[in-house]
Amino acid sequence: MTPNALDRLIALFCKLPGIGKKSAGRIVYHILDANPSFAETLSRELSGLHKAICRCSVCGGFTESNPAQKQVECIICSNPDRDHSVICVIESAQDMRVIEEGREFVGVYHVLGGLIAPLEGVDPENLSIGKLIARIHNANNQIKEIILALNPTIEGDTTALYLQKQLKDFPVEVTRLASGMPVGGNIEYIDKLTLSRSFRGRTRI
Amino acid sequence: MTPNALDRLIALFCKLPGIGKKSAGRIVYHILDANPSFAETLSRELSGLHKAICRCSVCGGFTESNPAQKQVECIICSNPDRDHSVICVIESAQDMRVIEEGREFVGVYHVLGGLIAPLEGVDPENLSIGKLIARIHNANNQIKEIILALNPTIEGDTTALYLQKQLKDFPVEVTRLASGMPVGGNIEYIDKLTLSRSFRGRTRI
Repeated sequence: MTPNALDRLIALFCKLPGIGKKSAGRIVYHILDANPSFAETLSRELSGLHKAICRCSVCGGFTESNPAQKQVECIICSNPDRDHSVICVIESAQDMRVIEEGREFVGVYHVLGGLIAPLEGVDPENLSIGKLIARIHNANNQIKEIILALNPTIEGDTTALYLQKQLKDFPVEVTRLASGMPVGGNIEYIDKLTLSRSFRGRTRI
Repeated sequence: MTPNALDRLIALFCKLPGIGKKSAGRIVYHILDANPSFAETLSRELSGLHKAICRCSVCGGFTESNPAQKQVECIICSNPDRDHSVICVIESAQDMRVIEEGREFVGVYHVLGGLIAPLEGVDPENLSIGKLIARIHNANNQIKEIILALNPTIEGDTTALYLQKQLKDFPVEVTRLASGMPVGGNIEYIDKLTLSRSFRGRTRI
């Protein structure tokens, strides 16, 4: 009973992560009620997105495209002020955004492009692990630490274990982000696994 | 630290209802990771939305534009099988979608375009109340019932009371959707106002 153009747009919004049928409807009616210039701007930015953004040739993160160069280095990899001896290994480019917002880490990144999940058909060969090893190899012992900033899930643990084995012959320290109770959390509501990790990872005060 | 095109798109998605900064980031990275054709399709649909959709000249709901006609009637208003003697008054065009999905109502609609909310600067003159009265007036006693399908909120109650007063001189029955406990609800968790309305609106079984 609703116009086709509306239904088509709602169906497209439904494909985005975290947006169900109801939310998609609300969003599309909101756009329809708003100034048409908003829809035009959103349309223009979406259409230009893949042309404006490409992958960094070093870390695999997203960066602004440069038509003059085929191999682009991102703003972090090309920054001499960053600590290039510490590589933070992350699952996806989005994690880089989150870590950068924390302003804690000053090293460089390496995007794996996923986590090892044999049941979902993701094997080590599907990830940029070979590229990470080549990167460490080509750095001539300049890299001191590899921080594995992978989710504390089965896939994250598997990937961390695999990377640890692959990197054990290199003179680099392999570390992993601490897992335990989140700040502001409540022991009463914490799950057993997290509590167990908090105990095992306890620190002197 | 993130490319400008990404930040601009995330800022645009943040303006949509129900989408915060984190969700917007997730959505934009998802679009970037997906096939570029998805972004192109979404862009094209958004750009064509306001041209494809216009307001129905009778009820004020959304309908497919027709370049040949300036005054377009929607698929419901122009359907002779609908009961044109019953008008369901709704706050926004989106409510029409929800009610149509319920397949309970077979009459026609009237979109108010909001609810009376003096504190937010929405007075009766800002809504299409005059148009509703003209519609009833011009129908020559053909309209038998006006169903007020307005939210059971202060604004909805105020608007319903105002409409009831405005329509009292017309030979139409003015009704309002039942307010009470939702199906599957639990008396233990229901708020006092809803419980009070459930009591007042109780029906014989």
